Amino acid sequence: MKQSFLFGKTRVEDPKDETSINAKLLMRAGFVDKLAAGIYSYLPLGLRVLYKIQNIVREEMNAIGGQELLLPALHPRASWEQTGRWNEDVMFKTQGHGGQDYGLGWTHEEIITPLVARFVSSHKDLPLALYQMQTKFRNEPRAKSGILRGREFNMKDLYSFHRDTHDLDAFYERALQAYSRVFERCGIPALVVEASGGSFSKYSHEFQMPTDSGEDIVYSCSACGRHQNKEIVEGNACPSCGGDRQELKAIEVGNIFKLGTRFSEPCGLRYADEQGKEQPVIMGCYGIGPSRVMGSVVEASHDTKGIIWPETVAPFKVHIVALGSSEAVISTAGALYTALHESAVDVLYDDRDMSAGAKFADSDLIGIPYRVVVSERTLKQGSVELKKRRSDETILVDVGELVRTLSK
Amino acid sequence: MKQSFLFGKTRVEDPKDETSINAKLLMRAGFVDKLAAGIYSYLPLGLRVLYKIQNIVREEMNAIGGQELLLPALHPRASWEQTGRWNEDVMFKTQGHGGQDYGLGWTHEEIITPLVARFVSSHKDLPLALYQMQTKFRNEPRAKSGILRGREFNMKDLYSFHRDTHDLDAFYERALQAYSRVFERCGIPALVVEASGGSFSKYSHEFQMPTDSGEDIVYSCSACGRHQNKEIVEGNACPSCGGDRQELKAIEVGNIFKLGTRFSEPCGLRYADEQGKEQPVIMGCYGIGPSRVMGSVVEASHDTKGIIWPETVAPFKVHIVALGSSEAVISTAGALYTALHESAVDVLYDDRDMSAGAKFADSDLIGIPYRVVVSERTLKQGSVELKKRRSDETILVDVGELVRTLSK
Repeated sequence: MKQSFLFGKTRVEDPKDETSINAKLLMRAGFVDKLAAGIYSYLPLGLRVLYKIQNIVREEMNAIGGQELLLPALHPRASWEQTGRWNEDVMFKTQGHGGQDYGLGWTHEEIITPLVARFVSSHKDLPLALYQMQTKFRNEPRAKSGILRGREFNMKDLYSFHRDTHDLDAFYERALQAYSRVFERCGIPALVVEASGGSFSKYSHEFQMPTDSGEDIVYSCSACGRHQNKEIVEGNACPSCGGDRQELKAIEVGNIFKLGTRFSEPCGLRYADEQGKEQPVIMGCYGIGPSRVMGSVVEASHDTKGIIWPETVAPFKVHIVALGSSEAVISTAGALYTALHESAVDVLYDDRDMSAGAKFADSDLIGIPYRVVVSERTLKQGSVELKKRRSDETILVDVGELVRTLSK
Repeated sequence: MKQSFLFGKTRVEDPKDETSINAKLLMRAGFVDKLAAGIYSYLPLGLRVLYKIQNIVREEMNAIGGQELLLPALHPRASWEQTGRWNEDVMFKTQGHGGQDYGLGWTHEEIITPLVARFVSSHKDLPLALYQMQTKFRNEPRAKSGILRGREFNMKDLYSFHRDTHDLDAFYERALQAYSRVFERCGIPALVVEASGGSFSKYSHEFQMPTDSGEDIVYSCSACGRHQNKEIVEGNACPSCGGDRQELKAIEVGNIFKLGTRFSEPCGLRYADEQGKEQPVIMGCYGIGPSRVMGSVVEASHDTKGIIWPETVAPFKVHIVALGSSEAVISTAGALYTALHESAVDVLYDDRDMSAGAKFADSDLIGIPYRVVVSERTLKQGSVELKKRRSDETILVDVGELVRTLSK
């Protein structure tokens, strides 16, 4: 894409009413725009990142047998009364002209469990894993963490359905591995952390990314690698090895939870086993917020000049920056742009009529992994500069070689 | 995908509380599930169709220079008070813990216009075309038309921004052509129909698909091809040629509208022209509901046995139906499934242990364009049956040829 065409300008100043690093950088670089506290628009650059994260999540959910569907956001009151959660504080409520009460979905157990009950009757219908990428709404009292904790945000929620706890346990372990792969692919160094498990299991598991801007506290044992959320910690010593534990601030980027029969019982989700006997279905749930992942990547990966996107989720792989307006520069930059584009490399081409300094500042702020600088100075030697945003390492590359190098 | 794995069973009986053809067929075939009046879940089959429609729309919007972004659904009251539309009946309202009033977005002029005002200042920033694929909420008093008129539905809304009416007119014409291509690609025979235009232009344009289940009335002149919505009709004769007009029921599948300065004025969206003089930006808006398009395709294309999907939006291109459980059938069907899959053909493989009658009934109901029947009878001749759902035309095809034929 040509940058002269791209909607969303960078700004030099931090937005006044934002304290989080993710919101400051994403707004300054033109990835998101703030409509109200906890409510953001995704501009073209930001939406590209969000889609890339969603696709990574989608691939990993499909790989463990997940099937994608899409549930509504507007939920009738009756769905939530069934499980006794209609009056949870987190729910936004609204009303139809006929007096119908609706809640806005902040999670979807109440919707998917009765849905599955309409299609599952036999042990032959199990196991089953269904997920969606959907907008969630939460009536958060405070929303000061940028896109990390929104009143409206994007969520991938997967629900799994099993005949027994053994089958749930096996799937839960596969989901845990899939989640680890998602965070690894997105460039997020996440710890698997034990958290409170509810009545069905002792622990649930959270994926926590250690960072000073985190809202959660994790007790981490470097000796044996067991990590626990502060909310369940009973003492300073590690319950596994007795070693000292470090207290880390962290952002929760995902969580997985064994629900057991908490929702299948009130929603009447049962199946007939091999003997024809009715049994409640055993459930698990698994959440990742792609918009929160996006914010976490920024918290984890930036410097004083701007964002440093991992290649897997970057809005573009290559940023061509043309310096000056000489014919040699314009024609070379244009040819490189076309050639990369045709090689299916995501490329942003800064064709704007601006100073080198302003272009470099924008490029550093936006944080595309590879920068190609086309200038008269290096073109005299038949080469362009190729710079990696992460390492600031710069090499001179022959113009003819560049497309081959970047298409790998 | 193997059908034994697919979530969502067919049902023989029509759902009791649905009167529309689209809802009956889509629910019976396992594409959607109803949560409440006007609120539907998209099951895996239905979501595949929705994504295909969205991609067609996306390609055509990108082709006319549209850039995709994503705006929030939760809107602060102040955004809507600015334009005097806070109290429109169609808006669902909710409230945050701090007493903040929010409306749920049923359209997005109030959000995108101030957003664009933060980024556009000069004539050099124009023209601009931005769109989103987003969930809309409408407090509909009645919701009896299945996914044609939902309280929650999927919408593509594009907004264009221009320096003058001349530029808007030119873009409007391109958008009209793009819309015509969308409907043609989706297999929807849509008429371009004049409708009321508001204060800025005499007419807006609707895309109306004639069908007996339509809620709109179109006056259609077959002599000169000019069509008008009944709401603006002043007499029986065609205003162009004076000919007689036919009264048609129709479904509105899209609309385009010249907004002029209706929103740029109250939202302060202005630009500096070449002389440095401030001018209001001239706007247009352009809507298509991908979920409504999905319902319209079903209304337009079905028979007594079920849905007949056009290939462009079908959940799968090919449906392999294996009859019986002989080794020859299972191995041939499995090999065909693998070969088609590897040739990037979307294929559903009915590997279930069910009678031929039940499988054919399901296949007819689901409506995948090509059906391949693998049975012992034809395998003896080294061939399988290839049937087109639309024409019921059946031919015998050599097993070795089949993949080549369908990969085209």
